[in-house]
Amino acid sequence: MDGVSTSQTAPIAFLKGHGTENDFVIVPDPDNAVDLPATAVAKLCDRRAGIGGDGLLHVVRSADHPEARAMADEAEWFMDYRNADGSNAEMCGNGVRVFARYLQRAGLVEEGDLAVATRGGVKKVHLAKDGDVTVSMGRARFPEEGVMVTVDGRSWPALNVNMGNPHAVAFVEDLDHAGNLLSVPPFSPASAYPDGVNVEFVVERGERHVAMRVHERGSGETRSCGTGACAVAVAAARRDGADPSVTGVPVTYTVDLPGGRLVITERADGEIEMTGPAVIVAEGHIDPALLTQVVPVSTETVIA
Amino acid sequence: MDGVSTSQTAPIAFLKGHGTENDFVIVPDPDNAVDLPATAVAKLCDRRAGIGGDGLLHVVRSADHPEARAMADEAEWFMDYRNADGSNAEMCGNGVRVFARYLQRAGLVEEGDLAVATRGGVKKVHLAKDGDVTVSMGRARFPEEGVMVTVDGRSWPALNVNMGNPHAVAFVEDLDHAGNLLSVPPFSPASAYPDGVNVEFVVERGERHVAMRVHERGSGETRSCGTGACAVAVAAARRDGADPSVTGVPVTYTVDLPGGRLVITERADGEIEMTGPAVIVAEGHIDPALLTQVVPVSTETVIA
Repeated sequence: MDGVSTSQTAPIAFLKGHGTENDFVIVPDPDNAVDLPATAVAKLCDRRAGIGGDGLLHVVRSADHPEARAMADEAEWFMDYRNADGSNAEMCGNGVRVFARYLQRAGLVEEGDLAVATRGGVKKVHLAKDGDVTVSMGRARFPEEGVMVTVDGRSWPALNVNMGNPHAVAFVEDLDHAGNLLSVPPFSPASAYPDGVNVEFVVERGERHVAMRVHERGSGETRSCGTGACAVAVAAARRDGADPSVTGVPVTYTVDLPGGRLVITERADGEIEMTGPAVIVAEGHIDPALLTQVVPVSTETVIA
Repeated sequence: MDGVSTSQTAPIAFLKGHGTENDFVIVPDPDNAVDLPATAVAKLCDRRAGIGGDGLLHVVRSADHPEARAMADEAEWFMDYRNADGSNAEMCGNGVRVFARYLQRAGLVEEGDLAVATRGGVKKVHLAKDGDVTVSMGRARFPEEGVMVTVDGRSWPALNVNMGNPHAVAFVEDLDHAGNLLSVPPFSPASAYPDGVNVEFVVERGERHVAMRVHERGSGETRSCGTGACAVAVAAARRDGADPSVTGVPVTYTVDLPGGRLVITERADGEIEMTGPAVIVAEGHIDPALLTQVVPVSTETVIA
């Protein structure tokens, strides 16, 4: 039952939420009864013609979704994550934190530990009493090749960190100056980053406390990037001579992003945990006509 | 009773809608009981941390708002329009069309003619059977000074049209090429535009049918601009030798914008009417905590 379209004349329930201003349209759909083709997701995520979001969290019981059924024993709920263009994605760290917040708010789970099924496997989540949500983000890898990041004619040495996706982390003197360059796509060697790269600029804020700005490949500068914050924390730890896999002692960094603050802990086994706020802003119903409306005439397409 | 804050622990009703992708958060508040200081409006209009919109339409009975009481005999409903930063604005052509659509949907007005109170005076609106909404936009003035618009080193002659706000309308050969320059703020002589200018690039699409792209001063390129579409229509009419004030014959132009299609009629008395779609996308409730939340830590402010 992968999306039955018969219910599409009824209003569709939604919520909107964000984690450090990485924002999402949430569509609760326990029985997987709402038809959400890519065109519908793109309309919902359209910031002017729809609700608007960096992505969509389709909330489905794992047992009722063909991509999650095998995980149903471990994790009752499946985060069917969609990019803003409607395509499927494996995982989103801020997304899974907001997903967990929704489940708690809806009374579907309790405070404490929780397992969430994603296309990237089952993720461990913790809902704290104080409202923060922690998610396990996996381990960092450090491809050996040293890299330089070049933006607008200026270059910085950077650490190559892979969090499942590629990052180049550069420590800079002046975050305002370097960060303002991030509207231009940064360049790093294709030999190190054949699939492009997310670039983080970082400054010191205090002991084990940094601030960062990020350029996400394909999106430009964003207010927050979960894997980017993790890459920055481990890069700062290595620069500070801290490596939990060697010392057996976890290290924790506070990372300030334009959209808020995340706390990143690297454990002795290498697992990285990301903790921060996850907020539901509004809830309501979507006019189902939105999902089937004719796309308005566009000057981009009508002009040859 | 200009905003009593006692009700702010209850969820706040909202809708989201758009007219040719000029989008708005709508807050129905007949009795003017919802406290909406600039900070609250800015949070609601924030596209990532809030709902998101180009502006906010606060729907209040004219008799219950100090700025509209004098118009209450003429127009039952007051569009308390706020810019996305929370500041007050006089009028917004696409906004008033969406405002009227909301009133109709809520059963507060019927199809047909309607008067809406705004800070720019009482506006005449027509809700058509086919769903389109028409609003009277006032008259165009043509300041005599000829102007050139310069973007990124290239210049075009332009017509100086004032629709209450200043416009420079330039007919171009290639809308894609010229329009792609619109991310850069265009330059026009300060003698003609002491307060800055909105720039429209226009191409022919057919008989009395044009397509345009627009740079709004302070905002950059946008998907739609109501006064800009009116300025373009009258500029095209004059170029085509049509002037209803001379001939006594109204002229109508179809104007395609990136966000949709508007139909603009200039009547014999000079009054300009703008017709197009107005869509309510979703409705629901906002968590009132959103309006009082502490602003998240920001790398922009913490980094000196």
